[in-house]
Amino acid sequence: MLLWNGKLVEEEQVRVSYRDRGYYFGDGIYEVFRLYQGNLFEKEAHLDRLYNSLREIKIELKWNREQLSEMLDELAATLGQQDGMLYIQFTRGEAKRAHIFPEVCEAVMLGYCEPLARPADLIENGIEAITLEDIRWLRCHIKSLNLLANTLAKQEAVEAGAKEAILIRSDDTVTECTASNLLIVKDGVIYTHPNGNLILDGITKQVVKRLAGELDIPYVEQAFGKQQLVDADEVFLTNTTMEATPIIAIDGRPVGTGTPGAVTRRLQVAYVEMVEQVVQKGSSSVI
Amino acid sequence: MLLWNGKLVEEEQVRVSYRDRGYYFGDGIYEVFRLYQGNLFEKEAHLDRLYNSLREIKIELKWNREQLSEMLDELAATLGQQDGMLYIQFTRGEAKRAHIFPEVCEAVMLGYCEPLARPADLIENGIEAITLEDIRWLRCHIKSLNLLANTLAKQEAVEAGAKEAILIRSDDTVTECTASNLLIVKDGVIYTHPNGNLILDGITKQVVKRLAGELDIPYVEQAFGKQQLVDADEVFLTNTTMEATPIIAIDGRPVGTGTPGAVTRRLQVAYVEMVEQVVQKGSSSVI
Repeated sequence: MLLWNGKLVEEEQVRVSYRDRGYYFGDGIYEVFRLYQGNLFEKEAHLDRLYNSLREIKIELKWNREQLSEMLDELAATLGQQDGMLYIQFTRGEAKRAHIFPEVCEAVMLGYCEPLARPADLIENGIEAITLEDIRWLRCHIKSLNLLANTLAKQEAVEAGAKEAILIRSDDTVTECTASNLLIVKDGVIYTHPNGNLILDGITKQVVKRLAGELDIPYVEQAFGKQQLVDADEVFLTNTTMEATPIIAIDGRPVGTGTPGAVTRRLQVAYVEMVEQVVQKGSSSVI
Repeated sequence: MLLWNGKLVEEEQVRVSYRDRGYYFGDGIYEVFRLYQGNLFEKEAHLDRLYNSLREIKIELKWNREQLSEMLDELAATLGQQDGMLYIQFTRGEAKRAHIFPEVCEAVMLGYCEPLARPADLIENGIEAITLEDIRWLRCHIKSLNLLANTLAKQEAVEAGAKEAILIRSDDTVTECTASNLLIVKDGVIYTHPNGNLILDGITKQVVKRLAGELDIPYVEQAFGKQQLVDADEVFLTNTTMEATPIIAIDGRPVGTGTPGAVTRRLQVAYVEMVEQVVQKGSSSVI
């Protein structure tokens, strides 16, 4: 089943218009939610960000937050008690092609969910990454459908035998990865790029920040360059489906000892404990 | 009639998949051709650029250039001998959503054309523009479907009472407009940003460069800043449907005398003469 403009429908009933501004311009935004045994994890945080993205590009919905929240529950329920993911996007709607916003336009909603196990092997053993120039636009805090730069970088990483690309601006600022935030650990301190227009404010990153606080691990939001990246003791990425995944090699060279580090491990353990609490409570967050 | 994956079909027969990577990621490219009395203007130059865009993002077509060229002729013929425009886009195709390119994927083609008169009033009297920060990605030479930054800037221009936005990078480099190239004239010399990754190599700009050569008007490809922009004697934009259109005010202040300038006028006259030649010859270019 797909969520299509507010209704759960069969795939055949979804009719995307060739005049959808999402198709011509990528004029829309999206969110990806995690489902742990049927529970929408950090649902309100994702909804907050979804509404931020909508506000930033001035898309208005005819559904209110409560209605949307219920629809997400209904969509999630189609998966039962499985681990999974839920994707939802909104475009500005259908109109004759013109850059300027249409005077009358109704946002188009598309959502689906599917089973997705935790990538236990990657979380346990880590992944390799390459570095690439960050060529994306300067509004990366908006989770928009303009993802061509991200897909090209991801493809380049995979063709190079890695799983992710770490993006670095031409002024040597390390920002994030193609679909995840990046955090490094040096002398027991976590560093990550501050929020702003250069990175997405990741929900998993927010969770890791809370967990670091609980574990008394210093957490500093501060820009750093490539040298600090490769000199780090530990490097890990965070995103909704990969949780906190160690990066054990960058551009073919080992990070630290070349194995997942102690700080990353502590955070992973705390993350799993928190997810278990959420599942036991049957709610979306322990906060 | 629409051009849909190589065939002319009725609108009802076009079925865009929600799994089209154009819809999820804006993973595709496009071109806009001008039709003068049924003639596809500068057809080969547009095709060259279309293939450049495809190459840059690694989309392969199952049609060859000759076949594509014939399809464009057939689509154009549906308009008869009118002035018009022809739009065509290619996405990477349909696949389960994942950033990485699908192993098997067939590009999706969508094209249409429609009548479009020359915007004689704008070309004659000029338009007003505002300046905005250029926040686009760093591959603006690719005519991609990632156009959210362009649409947002265009919308901001129109809301400010202008018709276009002139984009300026944070290092004070004036690049181009949301959907057109930008040229300035100072002391009889035309200046425009050099080709590269910051601007689209406009076909109309290429034509204007040729015409400037024929008219012995010095033409310099050189970056310039906002001060040079506002101090210019003349400013004009070029694009496929607007040809060479004067910008007579920027951020509410007149450019030069606040009326279309002499150099712009000479180029406009030469442009119209060339178009007339093309129409008389019934070919796509006088070159």
